[in-house]
Amino acid sequence: MLILGIDPGTAIMGYGLIKKEGYRLIPITYSCWRTSSDVPMPQRLKKLFRCMNELMHKYSPDVMAIEELFFNRNTTTALAVGQARGIALLSAAENDIRVFEYTPLQVKQAVVGYGKADKKQVQFMVKSLLSLKEDPKPDDTADALAIAICHAYSMGQSYGGLRK
Amino acid sequence: MLILGIDPGTAIMGYGLIKKEGYRLIPITYSCWRTSSDVPMPQRLKKLFRCMNELMHKYSPDVMAIEELFFNRNTTTALAVGQARGIALLSAAENDIRVFEYTPLQVKQAVVGYGKADKKQVQFMVKSLLSLKEDPKPDDTADALAIAICHAYSMGQSYGGLRK
Repeated sequence: MLILGIDPGTAIMGYGLIKKEGYRLIPITYSCWRTSSDVPMPQRLKKLFRCMNELMHKYSPDVMAIEELFFNRNTTTALAVGQARGIALLSAAENDIRVFEYTPLQVKQAVVGYGKADKKQVQFMVKSLLSLKEDPKPDDTADALAIAICHAYSMGQSYGGLRK
Repeated sequence: MLILGIDPGTAIMGYGLIKKEGYRLIPITYSCWRTSSDVPMPQRLKKLFRCMNELMHKYSPDVMAIEELFFNRNTTTALAVGQARGIALLSAAENDIRVFEYTPLQVKQAVVGYGKADKKQVQFMVKSLLSLKEDPKPDDTADALAIAICHAYSMGQSYGGLRK
């Protein structure tokens, strides 16, 4: 079972692809795509769409996991993240890949066992669970791996699913 | 010069295509695409992307005009609109169509001549400027036509442009 975790953003889109074999979690590839703010937004989204599709074609993940986002703060940020998130969801739909959504609380609970864990604790557990030699960087990549791990541990449980 | 106006949304995406011939504005086609909340979001975005691309292929608009959105209220709405907006911008980029953004204030000023005009005044002027027999409905379609008109009247002026 190949699980692709995505942390959407227009400037940095993190991705992490892991393989679940029984209880083992094996990292396959993880990094991030960057787009420059000097480039008009339509072209930035086009680049992200191309990168997503190339990854889908190369590895054929079974599912995509992405955070169900809630913003309390900045609506402008929400709009920008929404645009990148729309591209990720579209790429999944175009490639017939099921999408599962998890809240930040669910991700932290699944990865650290504690819903109020901080970023460092999440990164430490991601590194440990995937037996990585170095911290996955940037944060967006670590977060993408965390949500992939969350799905690996949550499969078959009642929460998550093909959300609207 | 064919101008496509888009009012993005995941439930209703309004569109309005107009032709500018000298000082004349001619409506070519205008309506909206709807997606059901019963369908998972990735599939809804896929449908909107298909519809956008079909329109692009059929009419080959010269430019796309879309509102530069600011939200003061609901971040969840901003995220949802952002997803639909991302699809519209991607479709423009994939079809090599330049995108121009205008603020709601600019749209009202261009169409009604008054930045604080209400929805009814905007709709009345859209109907009048395009010599339509009936009010364009729903609101999303009227708003899409309004932003296309805004671009027609704003071309060559200093505001607007290929925005980030």
